[in-house]
Amino acid sequence: MTSKTSLFFPVEDDLKLLRNNLKSLVGTRHPILSAAAEHLFDAGGKHIRPAIVLLVSKATMLEGDITPHHRRLAEITEMIHTASLVHDDIVDEAVLRRNVPTVNSLFDNRIAVLAGDFLFAQSSWYLANLDNLQVVKLLSEVIRDFAEGEISQGINRFDTSLTLDSYLDKSYYKTASLIANSAKSATILSNSSLDIINSIYTYGRCLGLAFQIVDDILDFTSPTKVLGKPAGSDLINGNITAPVLFAMEETPYLAKLIEREFNQEKDIEKALAIVAESKGIQRSQELAKYYALLAIEQLDCLKPSPFSQSLTELVNYVLDRLY
Amino acid sequence: MTSKTSLFFPVEDDLKLLRNNLKSLVGTRHPILSAAAEHLFDAGGKHIRPAIVLLVSKATMLEGDITPHHRRLAEITEMIHTASLVHDDIVDEAVLRRNVPTVNSLFDNRIAVLAGDFLFAQSSWYLANLDNLQVVKLLSEVIRDFAEGEISQGINRFDTSLTLDSYLDKSYYKTASLIANSAKSATILSNSSLDIINSIYTYGRCLGLAFQIVDDILDFTSPTKVLGKPAGSDLINGNITAPVLFAMEETPYLAKLIEREFNQEKDIEKALAIVAESKGIQRSQELAKYYALLAIEQLDCLKPSPFSQSLTELVNYVLDRLY
Repeated sequence: MTSKTSLFFPVEDDLKLLRNNLKSLVGTRHPILSAAAEHLFDAGGKHIRPAIVLLVSKATMLEGDITPHHRRLAEITEMIHTASLVHDDIVDEAVLRRNVPTVNSLFDNRIAVLAGDFLFAQSSWYLANLDNLQVVKLLSEVIRDFAEGEISQGINRFDTSLTLDSYLDKSYYKTASLIANSAKSATILSNSSLDIINSIYTYGRCLGLAFQIVDDILDFTSPTKVLGKPAGSDLINGNITAPVLFAMEETPYLAKLIEREFNQEKDIEKALAIVAESKGIQRSQELAKYYALLAIEQLDCLKPSPFSQSLTELVNYVLDRLY
Repeated sequence: MTSKTSLFFPVEDDLKLLRNNLKSLVGTRHPILSAAAEHLFDAGGKHIRPAIVLLVSKATMLEGDITPHHRRLAEITEMIHTASLVHDDIVDEAVLRRNVPTVNSLFDNRIAVLAGDFLFAQSSWYLANLDNLQVVKLLSEVIRDFAEGEISQGINRFDTSLTLDSYLDKSYYKTASLIANSAKSATILSNSSLDIINSIYTYGRCLGLAFQIVDDILDFTSPTKVLGKPAGSDLINGNITAPVLFAMEETPYLAKLIEREFNQEKDIEKALAIVAESKGIQRSQELAKYYALLAIEQLDCLKPSPFSQSLTELVNYVLDRLY
């Protein structure tokens, strides 16, 4: 398994700079907000999204010589991601994330709403100041996709008629859109060819989908201690993911348990057992691998460099999380 | 007193169009969100902000011939305003607004967070598609100002060291920034001269400040039935406004009551009586009038037209609300 540190080694110094900048970008005028920001940006995030932006930027600029706009884009990407987590945690009434208390639980919903709004607003503002309308449009689309994804997830809870396509759409909105559009924006700032711009978008989309599918598998297979929440939480909350979709195909009784929202004794235990005994996990792994391979293929458009190499390894790292 | 209808008569048809468009802009893909949007856009709002944008647009275009971008700007302005109200109501745990149940009370906090995020996201997206970076920057600034204003209001509750300047800053962030920057954006879309652009910004800023001061006065002087919330709510919640600032100058004992957060019997009654008996209301009225006059002066830059006339009358209407 590739360790996180060696994975991003070509942009390690840049990520260090980014971590320091993020806190100052949020500003220090509001002690509570600063506390929330410190808490958020220190909460053990891997900064995968800004790392991708930085790697794509370096891979597409001569001699890896990136501009301040590329760096700012990476920072904006992490700010948007963080803002979405803060509001997600209110919506999901989450108490822990990565084993660390959420802003809504540590402070309260009021502060969490404001902190998320402030981060979204700051990122919109920094975004506008990149002076590139195309990039502004791409990342505005991402913020819209987040809201869209959260809403359809909220509305489709316990809805067993969800198709694989709708599941993939939802995963795109929730996860892949930010990765794909921020990576694409990096190539636009690099004045890359249309071919590279499109390939990197597809790379981000496929990597994001693989990432989300793996996350959805781990929700079933990881111990609570690692997840920082009970295993099977998604299913218990009515959030139907790839392993459940495949397991329902095999064992239609699972759909019944879900439709009655597990309102009878042992329903949850039965449902989790059905998923575990089905081919749902295996077929989901194959789906994740399919997208991972598709992601790696896209990188053929880039000249070989430590940066493009790292982008390939990142895809493998996402799959490695399964084992 | 000027009636609402006659006030906006030069843009009445445009406002009708805007009302219809707003609902379709939110989209109909999500029944809950559509319900929230219908509820929001029907909730008796006066659409003062988009009316100002439309009036400024018509006043600055030859023969009042405005473009689709001007109309879209007016719609975006109302969407941003509405999004901010939805999140404000979560933060304030408000149950009623304009005597109508709030989204957080009618649905729940989850839906309200999502509905607000979705509206902000939609407006950012439409904003980017105006294809004018300067306008994107101005309105991103507004969204940031909202978060800033809400946060400092949250932090400075019961803080009697608040100065008149900080109160005016907070009022700018909360209210005047959107009016000033959306009106300014309209002149930018009209390719107006720098002189007009700056004067219209100042018009919006001063009108917004007068508007907020009047609102803060009405919170003391209007009956509960008209306000849709108990009179004196701001003070009870520790939100220190112009009438209180002036009353504290006159009667320092008021500060003591506020500092102990009204934790003794009859503290609230005493505080409200002190404000009522002080010159706080009168001095606040004078402050509102000062900004109203300043706003009207700015309109000298415009050619006389029914639109500029309506912009003048709007300022008087804001003051008329006091009587």
